[in-house]
Amino acid sequence: MKDEMAYLLGNKLNEECGVFGIYNVDDASSLTYFGLHALQHRGQEACGIATSDGETITCYKGKGLISEVFNTGIINSMKGKYAVGHVRYSTAGGNVIENIQPLMVRAHTGHFGIVHNGQIVNAQEIKIALENEGSIFQGSNDSEVLVHLIQKESGTMVQKIMKACAKLEGAFAYIIMTKDCMYAVRDKNGLRPLSYAKVDNGYCISSETCAYDIVNGKFIRALNPGEVVRFGKEGVQTFNYCEPEKTQHRMCAMEYIYFARPDSVIENINVHNMRKESGKILARKDANEKLDADMVIGVPDSSLSAAIGYAEESGLPYELGLIKNRYVGRTFIQPTQQLRERGVRMKLSAISAIVKDKNIIMIDDSIVRGTTSKRIVQLLKDAGAKSVHVRIASPEFVSPCFYGVDTATYEELISAQLDIESLRKFINAESLKFMSLEELSQACNHVGLCTACFSKEYPTELYGLKKTLKR
Amino acid sequence: MKDEMAYLLGNKLNEECGVFGIYNVDDASSLTYFGLHALQHRGQEACGIATSDGETITCYKGKGLISEVFNTGIINSMKGKYAVGHVRYSTAGGNVIENIQPLMVRAHTGHFGIVHNGQIVNAQEIKIALENEGSIFQGSNDSEVLVHLIQKESGTMVQKIMKACAKLEGAFAYIIMTKDCMYAVRDKNGLRPLSYAKVDNGYCISSETCAYDIVNGKFIRALNPGEVVRFGKEGVQTFNYCEPEKTQHRMCAMEYIYFARPDSVIENINVHNMRKESGKILARKDANEKLDADMVIGVPDSSLSAAIGYAEESGLPYELGLIKNRYVGRTFIQPTQQLRERGVRMKLSAISAIVKDKNIIMIDDSIVRGTTSKRIVQLLKDAGAKSVHVRIASPEFVSPCFYGVDTATYEELISAQLDIESLRKFINAESLKFMSLEELSQACNHVGLCTACFSKEYPTELYGLKKTLKR
Amino acid sequence: MKDEMAYLLGNKLNEECGVFGIYNVDDASSLTYFGLHALQHRGQEACGIATSDGETITCYKGKGLISEVFNTGIINSMKGKYAVGHVRYSTAGGNVIENIQPLMVRAHTGHFGIVHNGQIVNAQEIKIALENEGSIFQGSNDSEVLVHLIQKESGTMVQKIMKACAKLEGAFAYIIMTKDCMYAVRDKNGLRPLSYAKVDNGYCISSETCAYDIVNGKFIRALNPGEVVRFGKEGVQTFNYCEPEKTQHRMCAMEYIYFARPDSVIENINVHNMRKESGKILARKDANEKLDADMVIGVPDSSLSAAIGYAEESGLPYELGLIKNRYVGRTFIQPTQQLRERGVRMKLSAISAIVKDKNIIMIDDSIVRGTTSKRIVQLLKDAGAKSVHVRIASPEFVSPCFYGVDTATYEELISAQLDIESLRKFINAESLKFMSLEELSQACNHVGLCTACFSKEYPTELYGLKKTLKR
Amino acid sequence: MKDEMAYLLGNKLNEECGVFGIYNVDDASSLTYFGLHALQHRGQEACGIATSDGETITCYKGKGLISEVFNTGIINSMKGKYAVGHVRYSTAGGNVIENIQPLMVRAHTGHFGIVHNGQIVNAQEIKIALENEGSIFQGSNDSEVLVHLIQKESGTMVQKIMKACAKLEGAFAYIIMTKDCMYAVRDKNGLRPLSYAKVDNGYCISSETCAYDIVNGKFIRALNPGEVVRFGKEGVQTFNYCEPEKTQHRMCAMEYIYFARPDSVIENINVHNMRKESGKILARKDANEKLDADMVIGVPDSSLSAAIGYAEESGLPYELGLIKNRYVGRTFIQPTQQLRERGVRMKLSAISAIVKDKNIIMIDDSIVRGTTSKRIVQLLKDAGAKSVHVRIASPEFVSPCFYGVDTATYEELISAQLDIESLRKFINAESLKFMSLEELSQACNHVGLCTACFSKEYPTELYGLKKTLKR
Repeated sequence: MKDEMAYLLGNKLNEECGVFGIYNVDDASSLTYFGLHALQHRGQEACGIATSDGETITCYKGKGLISEVFNTGIINSMKGKYAVGHVRYSTAGGNVIENIQPLMVRAHTGHFGIVHNGQIVNAQEIKIALENEGSIFQGSNDSEVLVHLIQKESGTMVQKIMKACAKLEGAFAYIIMTKDCMYAVRDKNGLRPLSYAKVDNGYCISSETCAYDIVNGKFIRALNPGEVVRFGKEGVQTFNYCEPEKTQHRMCAMEYIYFARPDSVIENINVHNMRKESGKILARKDANEKLDADMVIGVPDSSLSAAIGYAEESGLPYELGLIKNRYVGRTFIQPTQQLRERGVRMKLSAISAIVKDKNIIMIDDSIVRGTTSKRIVQLLKDAGAKSVHVRIASPEFVSPCFYGVDTATYEELISAQLDIESLRKFINAESLKFMSLEELSQACNHVGLCTACFSKEYPTELYGLKKTLKR
Repeated sequence: MKDEMAYLLGNKLNEECGVFGIYNVDDASSLTYFGLHALQHRGQEACGIATSDGETITCYKGKGLISEVFNTGIINSMKGKYAVGHVRYSTAGGNVIENIQPLMVRAHTGHFGIVHNGQIVNAQEIKIALENEGSIFQGSNDSEVLVHLIQKESGTMVQKIMKACAKLEGAFAYIIMTKDCMYAVRDKNGLRPLSYAKVDNGYCISSETCAYDIVNGKFIRALNPGEVVRFGKEGVQTFNYCEPEKTQHRMCAMEYIYFARPDSVIENINVHNMRKESGKILARKDANEKLDADMVIGVPDSSLSAAIGYAEESGLPYELGLIKNRYVGRTFIQPTQQLRERGVRMKLSAISAIVKDKNIIMIDDSIVRGTTSKRIVQLLKDAGAKSVHVRIASPEFVSPCFYGVDTATYEELISAQLDIESLRKFINAESLKFMSLEELSQACNHVGLCTACFSKEYPTELYGLKKTLKR
Repeated sequence: MKDEMAYLLGNKLNEECGVFGIYNVDDASSLTYFGLHALQHRGQEACGIATSDGETITCYKGKGLISEVFNTGIINSMKGKYAVGHVRYSTAGGNVIENIQPLMVRAHTGHFGIVHNGQIVNAQEIKIALENEGSIFQGSNDSEVLVHLIQKESGTMVQKIMKACAKLEGAFAYIIMTKDCMYAVRDKNGLRPLSYAKVDNGYCISSETCAYDIVNGKFIRALNPGEVVRFGKEGVQTFNYCEPEKTQHRMCAMEYIYFARPDSVIENINVHNMRKESGKILARKDANEKLDADMVIGVPDSSLSAAIGYAEESGLPYELGLIKNRYVGRTFIQPTQQLRERGVRMKLSAISAIVKDKNIIMIDDSIVRGTTSKRIVQLLKDAGAKSVHVRIASPEFVSPCFYGVDTATYEELISAQLDIESLRKFINAESLKFMSLEELSQACNHVGLCTACFSKEYPTELYGLKKTLKR
Repeated sequence: MKDEMAYLLGNKLNEECGVFGIYNVDDASSLTYFGLHALQHRGQEACGIATSDGETITCYKGKGLISEVFNTGIINSMKGKYAVGHVRYSTAGGNVIENIQPLMVRAHTGHFGIVHNGQIVNAQEIKIALENEGSIFQGSNDSEVLVHLIQKESGTMVQKIMKACAKLEGAFAYIIMTKDCMYAVRDKNGLRPLSYAKVDNGYCISSETCAYDIVNGKFIRALNPGEVVRFGKEGVQTFNYCEPEKTQHRMCAMEYIYFARPDSVIENINVHNMRKESGKILARKDANEKLDADMVIGVPDSSLSAAIGYAEESGLPYELGLIKNRYVGRTFIQPTQQLRERGVRMKLSAISAIVKDKNIIMIDDSIVRGTTSKRIVQLLKDAGAKSVHVRIASPEFVSPCFYGVDTATYEELISAQLDIESLRKFINAESLKFMSLEELSQACNHVGLCTACFSKEYPTELYGLKKTLKR
């Protein structure tokens, strides 16, 4: 139930973006196009690519999908063996042209471009301090804070990056491209994914590993928390801007649960396998229930893995109870009031022949506002389902995220407002279960996770953002 | 593995189109927009809608998806309670503006529009005869032949339609809209699907039943072969242009196998269920094989149902070994030669964590030219699969279709050129099996099928088209 | 004050279209693009080009300007040494895709395309007769009638064209392109212009001579009324479908007054020179008036020639009192009610420094509804003009045109409703004069003209159209 | 011969942009749309509008004409009574998204937007100094330098602006909009025009006065050199950032000669009148020549005023020898090599009937590279002109401009390379004359001008730009 649904039903969850870079490979712009295409699920609102031929950096960006913003003529005009690219999801308020990345710095000492994924929690504090010293911010994104901080520092680019990172708190994974070097950086809690791969005689850096296949890249490793990797003529050099004992592994749990593509590998765990394991855990929780269920179905696409896992563990048949229309684009006519209510039906259909008179276990990845879940349950019941048991392959959202996931405000999180039984009634399901935090951890093989949205345990200071928290 | 792949890999299979009509319902243009949206999988090249307010017919059409051709302004400007619409897939040669439907006839005796799905096998013969009498054809589609034939006849519209149909041989399902009446027509072999539903105080007609849900329609029934249904002030009237004993049920098998949406019901059989049953049959065929398989995967999207069936029957795990990129649009940059070979990877990814070192049963719906199958097998092996056993949920294509399915020419059908063992080697699979004709029939619960492309048994005369057949 | 103004002020006058053809010249599609570009002033709503490589005809068309519908890729894909093209102005009701030309006939005996300019007065009668014999009309334009009539005849293409023309009454100039021949045809009253030129080893045919320069064509001659010219392997052959004594020269006066580009030559008279002569005649009519005028200004662009003539004859200074904004495109925001009234100001500006406190003679080409004239006079007075004497370089419109000029209905023609003095008051001018019919004839050097819109003397029968005439 | 020609013939001259602001008027975004439409001739590459509702600033911008970038939906969504807008011409290298204006500063102390016209000669020096203090520049335009300088200063916005301006050298006219105030600023040499007008209860500020009419503005006055005008709740306040005795009037001569619309008034001189006077002066220079000329023609559109003046003074007839195609858009197919040479003919046509066998005086506004002039002379001679005497309504370009006019580099200025007689031969004219500096001054009624491009007398220091000067 990813992104496009947002257009019909209001936003659900949105990852900020995906970053991609390629170092010392022919046709860098073309490969970046393909790499971003593989990351398109991380952001569909805007995108951009900057390339360097070793001397001059060329940057092109615009609103829309990679396939809409770029064409052969543009890609061919972007020469060079170095490139960085970005796909972006932006909320309405932030949909200004100045926020589209790569963000370019055109300084007399050298131009560079940056692509950034994440959210810096002390951005506002840093911004005010920088503005008081004369800095100017044109857009409303954290990435601009990042580059100002870097440029304020002295030394080599690596030194500047390291000094700047030391002052930043929050989630970030970014790539900086100068005319002939590339720097990949990850925050000290490892909240956002970033890894690199070998491509011919060069390298490729990506938010998700799913982008390597199309560019023929061989995965090398994920960056460590607090690490800066420099790709240059001297080869691949690594630096730590933070003492290793002060770093920790706190990968965003939602990357596993919802954002990442099933074929991506995050911290050595395949996303599909983790989701499937979640489904198995949910099945085991139901082992002693008398659900009398006939089948297991998943809400396409992000919940199919968990549904397969549940089915496998429970021995119940896995079924295609819901199918998704592949042609829901981003523009269509304004539905009449009468049709708005049935909006979900443009996107999803229940297969009546399958669900009619059946007791169904429906797996979804998460519940944010609850309205989508309510409508999907209704869709199944309208198609004849006798009962719908909803199983959520994640814990309850009880607190907003400040690290780049747009889980809506505290007030909008239905699990922050209702207990499970009330929520079950609201969505009109026969039963409703979530995973526990411990079960989530188990599904991820106990890799270090950030579960702040489920547990309110934020791995960093929150600074001014604290005031938006309740209780 | 539907349509969009065609852009990367060359055409595979293409259905000609989908038709939709709505009679005596408010906001007819808006509902037709939503109905066509649900039929978008049947054609993405061009579309159009004509509406009537009881007096005047307004027609708007263009190239592209429904969401690209229409917007709120256009839909709102199309007034009336009657509408017909069309989505079209056209091959390169036929991509002329004159072929986009609805096809309008603006006669002094009354305007009407027609939307048509299918192929008329004696179109060329009729066209020549009509031209010799002075008729003019602007486009290159069969639908124009249809309306000329109708207009040449005398009598009421129903009489004209019936006389015309009696002269037509082939596959067709069409809707004619006059200023205040609608006529739905199906060929006497029932080769193309067409059914109708109740909507409020009116009716809705559609190529596939999956379009009824979004317009709140309640399915009534499929038209019979050789039937004309008239929707008018007098209510719903039915006519047979052909003696019932001369009609037969020969539903296109490819509708079940490949074209239709899984939630559609064709001749009382749900498409997903039929595909799942095919998978079960394939599993039973393998019951005594020592395949040592670890899992079953399907090629998304059209082969997932069969894969689920195979898994259920065999007891092997159903897995997501291949995932599909949802953002492959219709325009993207020209891949370099090097990338072209890996084109399939923009569209499909293998999940290495799942398939690595595994023996895999891969289900696909069909094999046309063989190149796509070869590339997918390679994709799985590159991701580490130990062995790939390909199972095709249909018989071998050995003969071209003349009823609207673009299965390529005789020479391009790889099963017409190679025996199964040679084809297995070509696609580099460890084993390869197809369904038999009998098994296909069984999966469809022995509903009357046209299986000409598998059996060379054409349910109609072929006229001049015969010369393109071999042997 | 041509076409674009229509978007702000309502339609004024519209010519139906421009036609262009090129025979036996390399890069025919590219040259046709440039030729149509030179004819773009004759129609901006839609355009199309068909080319033939001697075997196959390729046709491409769409809504918009030549530069919007075509691009290098499309033009390059249209191979061949033969091409015809069309630019079209269509009124709202006729803005259907089926009306865009070239109109293609795809017959088993050979394909051909036609481009047509003009209006056939007995089209409706012919259409009904043809329909009664089974013909079908998809669009609402006369050109379709033309091709049906041709196809109904027997013999060679020339014979068919000649027989068809003999049955047609009205204004037409058209070009037919078969796979390797071209036919140019003009009605027997010579109402619409058509001429041809030599280009390298081939020929070029055009509605206006202004298109020859860009394709390096050397003007040969205009077609005679009632003439068919065939361009083929046998060379240029000429035929008369009407006995010469039954033909006459009745060139549309509005071609001189308003439609044609000043650099075109029609019936051996340069358009600019004719307009300038009209201005001189108007000046001589004022010779004895005590106008006390300070300057002469023209309404750009079509009235500048006449203003220059008036100035030259009168000895008064020619001034740029009104200037035109070159960037009024076809789409802009909906003006608020308050701005609508001042709509003319987006298009035209008065130069206050010039007109302030001055007595002005303002030349315009014609008055249709009167509202535009009223607004321009007001514009000048708002800019400080002391008095505005309006001189119209044509007689009064008193009757509608049935030969392709959209001069609005009888009721909309203000000169059919008001006498000159009342009209003067309506437009708030200090004085107002038109040319007489005799003066118009004199300005055109007494070439044979159709002046039906000024004189009600229609050179042909009017058939059913007669009923729309008053008195 | 303005801008669009550039697409065919290479750039000729380009003004950087036009600025427009509106203070305290309803429908500010809509009026700014219309105002920018009237300034569209000053830049067609990109445009933008920012509006404020008193609290929040909304900014929208993009590449293309005002009518292409904006539509009713966007304009309506931009609420508020304050707005600024910009139209931009950018050379290829500068065509980056970051340069499109309004440039927004989103500071925690308040957001503001700026629109800027001109070029700052010490921008590079300031930029380096600012970067050394940590400032970051994302684009490549001077406007960014401007805002950084302002933000570095302390005090109220007026104080900051004044301190910043005191450090700037060069040409600028800009408008700053905060959430509820507007500041208009002009450089101390008055090199770029800026004036304001009354609109209802508010004000309007514009680069050219021609924008006032469409918004119903009443011209008040031009800003003085070195003046800052603040529009706020306190009314209109004026400040001088430079002692009046250190300011001077050095209006860019090219504004009169080429850029401005004929209906604009600059420094109390109407542009058309100035151009006409130039024509008269040219005529007087020819008074004793035996040119035996038959007529005077101007190169449309910018030279028509001068041609009218020449004709009036000399008593020779003013003629329309050259006409311009109104439909040359910004995109068209790539001409073949053969057609490229004749590119000018897509844009301009000579009227053979007028110029044939005639001795012609052709007025153009300026000569930059000489290639366009050469082609126009050829066009006239191909149309039969016996002789072409070229008269240029400005002095010779001998030195580049550093104040915002893109007159190409020193090497490209043909008058910096050739003497008049050599240039005459190059363009193949029978005679060639320019205006002298004194004559130019006289045509402008001795208003203070910057004539650096003609005289090498730059009114400011040139800093690092000096090195691009020759001799």
